[in-house]
Amino acid sequence: MLINCAAYQDGRKLADIKPEEISDYVGRPDCFVWVALFNPDPAELSQMQQEFGLHELAVEDARHGHQRPKIEEYGDSLFAVLHTVDAEGGDLEIGEVDVFVGPNYLLSVRSRTEHGFANVRARCEREPHLLRQGSGFVFYALMDAIVDRYFPVLDALEEKLEAVEALIFSGNSARSNIESLYQLKQKLMTLKHAAGPLLEASGKLHGGRVPQVCTGTQDYYRDVYDHLIRINQSIDSLRDMVTTAISVNLSLITLQENETTRRIAAYAALVAVPTMIAGVYGMNFKNMPELSWEFGYPLALSIMAVLDGVLFYRLRKAGWL
Amino acid sequence: MLINCAAYQDGRKLADIKPEEISDYVGRPDCFVWVALFNPDPAELSQMQQEFGLHELAVEDARHGHQRPKIEEYGDSLFAVLHTVDAEGGDLEIGEVDVFVGPNYLLSVRSRTEHGFANVRARCEREPHLLRQGSGFVFYALMDAIVDRYFPVLDALEEKLEAVEALIFSGNSARSNIESLYQLKQKLMTLKHAAGPLLEASGKLHGGRVPQVCTGTQDYYRDVYDHLIRINQSIDSLRDMVTTAISVNLSLITLQENETTRRIAAYAALVAVPTMIAGVYGMNFKNMPELSWEFGYPLALSIMAVLDGVLFYRLRKAGWL
Amino acid sequence: MLINCAAYQDGRKLADIKPEEISDYVGRPDCFVWVALFNPDPAELSQMQQEFGLHELAVEDARHGHQRPKIEEYGDSLFAVLHTVDAEGGDLEIGEVDVFVGPNYLLSVRSRTEHGFANVRARCEREPHLLRQGSGFVFYALMDAIVDRYFPVLDALEEKLEAVEALIFSGNSARSNIESLYQLKQKLMTLKHAAGPLLEASGKLHGGRVPQVCTGTQDYYRDVYDHLIRINQSIDSLRDMVTTAISVNLSLITLQENETTRRIAAYAALVAVPTMIAGVYGMNFKNMPELSWEFGYPLALSIMAVLDGVLFYRLRKAGWL
Amino acid sequence: MLINCAAYQDGRKLADIKPEEISDYVGRPDCFVWVALFNPDPAELSQMQQEFGLHELAVEDARHGHQRPKIEEYGDSLFAVLHTVDAEGGDLEIGEVDVFVGPNYLLSVRSRTEHGFANVRARCEREPHLLRQGSGFVFYALMDAIVDRYFPVLDALEEKLEAVEALIFSGNSARSNIESLYQLKQKLMTLKHAAGPLLEASGKLHGGRVPQVCTGTQDYYRDVYDHLIRINQSIDSLRDMVTTAISVNLSLITLQENETTRRIAAYAALVAVPTMIAGVYGMNFKNMPELSWEFGYPLALSIMAVLDGVLFYRLRKAGWL
Amino acid sequence: MLINCAAYQDGRKLADIKPEEISDYVGRPDCFVWVALFNPDPAELSQMQQEFGLHELAVEDARHGHQRPKIEEYGDSLFAVLHTVDAEGGDLEIGEVDVFVGPNYLLSVRSRTEHGFANVRARCEREPHLLRQGSGFVFYALMDAIVDRYFPVLDALEEKLEAVEALIFSGNSARSNIESLYQLKQKLMTLKHAAGPLLEASGKLHGGRVPQVCTGTQDYYRDVYDHLIRINQSIDSLRDMVTTAISVNLSLITLQENETTRRIAAYAALVAVPTMIAGVYGMNFKNMPELSWEFGYPLALSIMAVLDGVLFYRLRKAGWL
Repeated sequence: MLINCAAYQDGRKLADIKPEEISDYVGRPDCFVWVALFNPDPAELSQMQQEFGLHELAVEDARHGHQRPKIEEYGDSLFAVLHTVDAEGGDLEIGEVDVFVGPNYLLSVRSRTEHGFANVRARCEREPHLLRQGSGFVFYALMDAIVDRYFPVLDALEEKLEAVEALIFSGNSARSNIESLYQLKQKLMTLKHAAGPLLEASGKLHGGRVPQVCTGTQDYYRDVYDHLIRINQSIDSLRDMVTTAISVNLSLITLQENETTRRIAAYAALVAVPTMIAGVYGMNFKNMPELSWEFGYPLALSIMAVLDGVLFYRLRKAGWL
Repeated sequence: MLINCAAYQDGRKLADIKPEEISDYVGRPDCFVWVALFNPDPAELSQMQQEFGLHELAVEDARHGHQRPKIEEYGDSLFAVLHTVDAEGGDLEIGEVDVFVGPNYLLSVRSRTEHGFANVRARCEREPHLLRQGSGFVFYALMDAIVDRYFPVLDALEEKLEAVEALIFSGNSARSNIESLYQLKQKLMTLKHAAGPLLEASGKLHGGRVPQVCTGTQDYYRDVYDHLIRINQSIDSLRDMVTTAISVNLSLITLQENETTRRIAAYAALVAVPTMIAGVYGMNFKNMPELSWEFGYPLALSIMAVLDGVLFYRLRKAGWL
Repeated sequence: MLINCAAYQDGRKLADIKPEEISDYVGRPDCFVWVALFNPDPAELSQMQQEFGLHELAVEDARHGHQRPKIEEYGDSLFAVLHTVDAEGGDLEIGEVDVFVGPNYLLSVRSRTEHGFANVRARCEREPHLLRQGSGFVFYALMDAIVDRYFPVLDALEEKLEAVEALIFSGNSARSNIESLYQLKQKLMTLKHAAGPLLEASGKLHGGRVPQVCTGTQDYYRDVYDHLIRINQSIDSLRDMVTTAISVNLSLITLQENETTRRIAAYAALVAVPTMIAGVYGMNFKNMPELSWEFGYPLALSIMAVLDGVLFYRLRKAGWL
Repeated sequence: MLINCAAYQDGRKLADIKPEEISDYVGRPDCFVWVALFNPDPAELSQMQQEFGLHELAVEDARHGHQRPKIEEYGDSLFAVLHTVDAEGGDLEIGEVDVFVGPNYLLSVRSRTEHGFANVRARCEREPHLLRQGSGFVFYALMDAIVDRYFPVLDALEEKLEAVEALIFSGNSARSNIESLYQLKQKLMTLKHAAGPLLEASGKLHGGRVPQVCTGTQDYYRDVYDHLIRINQSIDSLRDMVTTAISVNLSLITLQENETTRRIAAYAALVAVPTMIAGVYGMNFKNMPELSWEFGYPLALSIMAVLDGVLFYRLRKAGWL
Repeated sequence: MLINCAAYQDGRKLADIKPEEISDYVGRPDCFVWVALFNPDPAELSQMQQEFGLHELAVEDARHGHQRPKIEEYGDSLFAVLHTVDAEGGDLEIGEVDVFVGPNYLLSVRSRTEHGFANVRARCEREPHLLRQGSGFVFYALMDAIVDRYFPVLDALEEKLEAVEALIFSGNSARSNIESLYQLKQKLMTLKHAAGPLLEASGKLHGGRVPQVCTGTQDYYRDVYDHLIRINQSIDSLRDMVTTAISVNLSLITLQENETTRRIAAYAALVAVPTMIAGVYGMNFKNMPELSWEFGYPLALSIMAVLDGVLFYRLRKAGWL
């Protein structure tokens, strides 16, 4: 589906144009065309390929989707695969944005995410002095928007970890904690799959030799690169903390088992000692003087009670109860 | 066994030729010979060595088999060892395809796998504009076919992990889960042994200085390289998740032991308390008024029942039962 | 808030100047301006941007704060983000100091930390032969002061680890030990986030090509770099030891559980054996000679006592009691 | 002890020569001398040093032995330390072969291994067209022979791991499994110490700038290098699997403990329930009608039996028995 | 404290000189001055700084001490910080030797270790042909002496690990084993802190561009480097083995807990079964024929004994006792 198709000149929008006019505008050196597709059908992609003169392999990748994030050069144009990550009701939804960038065009192909980039276009159109820098700047703006969306996802995972930590140390719901930690690890991996390859790829867009379309905007790409480093470091830290939390959790469960065993043993003792005394006075010896005492029975009961009292006091003091 | 032996010119098949004619066709600059062997005997390999003028060490490797995946340059020709991976009834079967690539020939030697490459040849012959690029393209097509077969294997392992995860968290069949996780780890290692060395080797076929036979088809090799990166990252992620799953599983088993201990203790208490009371009324004191009460016995039984009732209620509330 | 704003010449302070005079002094080649801000409002930052001619992206970073530590070149000036770490009542407080360094100016923007750098300025003014080296030296002095504050934090964490270790091996308070180890790991990660990126960034300030403002003071930057290496190595070592301590702690808990089980079993035996004997003499057989013995009852009690004595002795010898 | 000392020309043996003649033959440009020593005494080494003009530090290393594997250049000659690994009755025996290689000589000094290299010499003498390539080829042949001996050792360790795995999952002999896994890890480390440094060292003998004596035989050294990569990867994989096996084993032991606890509890229940019933009927209430029933006793026994039967059935169904 | 101060010419000692004469001798091109200090006071260091013309930052480092090992170039002189490691009564004592090396002087500043380097000086003076190579060789000799002292420390740790391993597998003193393993890990880390940074630093003293004072003695520095690699690899291996030993130990403790549980259960069964039978014959049914049998009582005792005998046999066979 065609979302948007416009030509720009000198940082300002010339006009919304029809797809079949694209090649005309692309041919004008001072002009720049920005097209956005959403879940395009093969015919739309083929049309774009012809209008822009896109490389076969790149179009093939966009057609199949499910590529890993990457930025590839084809001659003087770039083909980028970016992943969007949205936290939908606890699950992480991975979307894909394929971007074709040439000296005077940018084509974005979005799929598997509802979340569009109208705000990026709006911001660019509000700032003609930046938009004037052409497709290199628009590509930066898109990447920046996608990368910025990783931060809230990461924050949510961090908060989730803190919530699970609190539960772990309060000793509650061990089973669901373990499951939560495992799910956290899975989500961190999902996020890593989106952000990791992009870090590596975006490193080539600033410093040293950079693709031609990025030359004027290197400082901006360094900024995105910087965000990606921060994201990747946070992911790695979180993964490390989750691993530590899993082993700490095991320690706590083992510890609790020890405490359970102690408590059970303490209660068992409180039952076993009277049982033993009762057993003794249940013996059938002819000659057991206590049995004939008037207050033998209450005495026996008292002995049981006193012994249990002493036991209870000592066990509580030892922390077993 | 000779599977196929044909000469091509300008992207189209000239003719099926006899092995002894190979050297004639290889000598013609505009021609290109494509031979496929399956489990060849030494004589066949020697003949090929002579017809193509292959390097001694490379032929030696092909003769022995069981090489690790690699791509080596011998002058202006390449020798590649590729591993096929097939999931046969739960086990991973590793096959080997040794490929000799020269400027105008390609010889593939397949062993230990039934799965041939007739479809690669068919596809190439259907697309003369691609086949025209010669042996470099055919080599790419072969590699691509082999690497593409890794994906379903990887998907199967991923599904297997998900199945085991579900079992782990449902608390069932702990023993077989452990065994499954261990087998998963082994299979991931097997797959890694096939895909890992190839990643490293194929990195040299695009970008920077590349072997001559690959010069026109670098973008294709980058595509294969990209697939291999994705496969290797997925393998590493899966291995990490399996390791995590093993330790999570240990936590869950320990947790369950704690629960088992609690449940047992709870039932033990339900038996021990009546036993103690019975013991008390089994004592032989002369003067035990309760014993003479008309309803002493049912009272005693009632006390037992009530105590057990209270216990049961409290233990259930505490989650021990 | 403007903390300080002064011009220097030839290593000595010329005068405290007003912010709006900055651009005059910066324009004088033999002069150097040093400004310190604390939690500046946007207007102050904008004024500084104009007076010094700072780069938009750098000012943007300073305005938002919460950047990761980094040192970036913008033309012939540097923009550095440094993190201060203060141990406040057990917690680590992360502050941020953003530094803009040009050939003849240095602007520091401090936020989220009360701890200022008046002593750095005082020391520099006391040593004109060093201050004469200009902004490069002042930047070094600031970095050095910040990095030096990491050491006591690290030492505190090291002492904390030693305290926890002592508790672990004395067998006390297992639960709080686990929590302490987990918190230690978190704090080490916080410290690493401050010191790690700075290590990498400061490596570019000495040796090989260095930014122009640092050229005369490379040996000093190597010194800071050296401190950062030491800090990072210590952090890594501590993290490794914490991980080891967690697993050692698990071993000790498991060991203690084993000892608990043994002790409980030992006491249970001391109760169960007399109970069994009492049970035997509670049987109702007509013909049980012992029952009629005059000293049958005391004998039975003695047997119980002797058996328990023997048991007690053996269990103690086996280390179960 | 001098094992062998011969001069070769044009790929064929000229004659066995005396040690004191070595310097004469080494002086002849078309000639090449190959000497093998075994556990030499210092005098022999000194003689060789003089005859060949070996470097002081290299001879010193050979004299002391117990060097780590390495390949060092001294001018136009090489000094290599290689480790042999033999599996002797379960233990790994490390031997050392020090090799001095010059443009027209090769001196091998073997120690701490009985296993000689007569077969290498025999093979070389059978293939004059290869031996003609001189000391570089002989050095390759020696390295190749040593590295080839690592494979059976590695295979034995792999088989051992498989045997232990089978035992682990069959649930037998947990204690000896743990010990076996630990020993496996130790042996893998021993093997790694032999093969790891050699990998790194041999990487410099092919591709890029290589020592002069290896120039004509680079393809052969690449082959050795390839074997070493395979060995090192297998070692790393095995170490990873051993680590996994250790943690899997812990899971299985914990699991078995849980099962043990369940089984014990089940049997305890089968005893405790009749005991409780017996206790009830052992009470001394005057008015317990059941006691006077004619079939009261068999009824009581039946109740016990029935209860135990029901318990047994349910416990077995729950998998506790 | 000044330990030694002598001038050398042409490999031989000229004379012991006074500190204030140093600058005279250092000025003579064919001469070379070697000074050794121990725990110097600031005045001594300042004098040396003036006599030799040492760099401010290097002297500062020597004054403060507690630097990490490093080798730094200041113009044509070197400043090295080396750590000595001595095993004193189980603990590792870290000393520091700071070395200033110039084209014709060497100043060593030793602190926190009693162990001096008189033997290095003696050896050098015995070998004029080596000493003739000047300060570069003396620096090598010092480094070599310090690094050689790491080996016995490492060997002691290796022996300690073997001793602990033996205890682990013999099943003794689990608690002290854990503590020993933890201490081993700490000591290995201490040793690593001394040897690790030195490895990296000494790698720059041979091969490629090396500092001028080391140019003639590169082969010697490669030798030291080689020793350091060996030491670092051994440390890493030992750390890995200690980690493995800790987890193996946990497995063994868990295993032993399982065995303890079984043994306890077995003994409990031997007591519970007779108790149950006694309970049965303690019931008060009127009509219990066995009670009137003449040999009812011995029969009951025999049944108890036989049942226990059978139980004992079966439990022993099952390995529970």
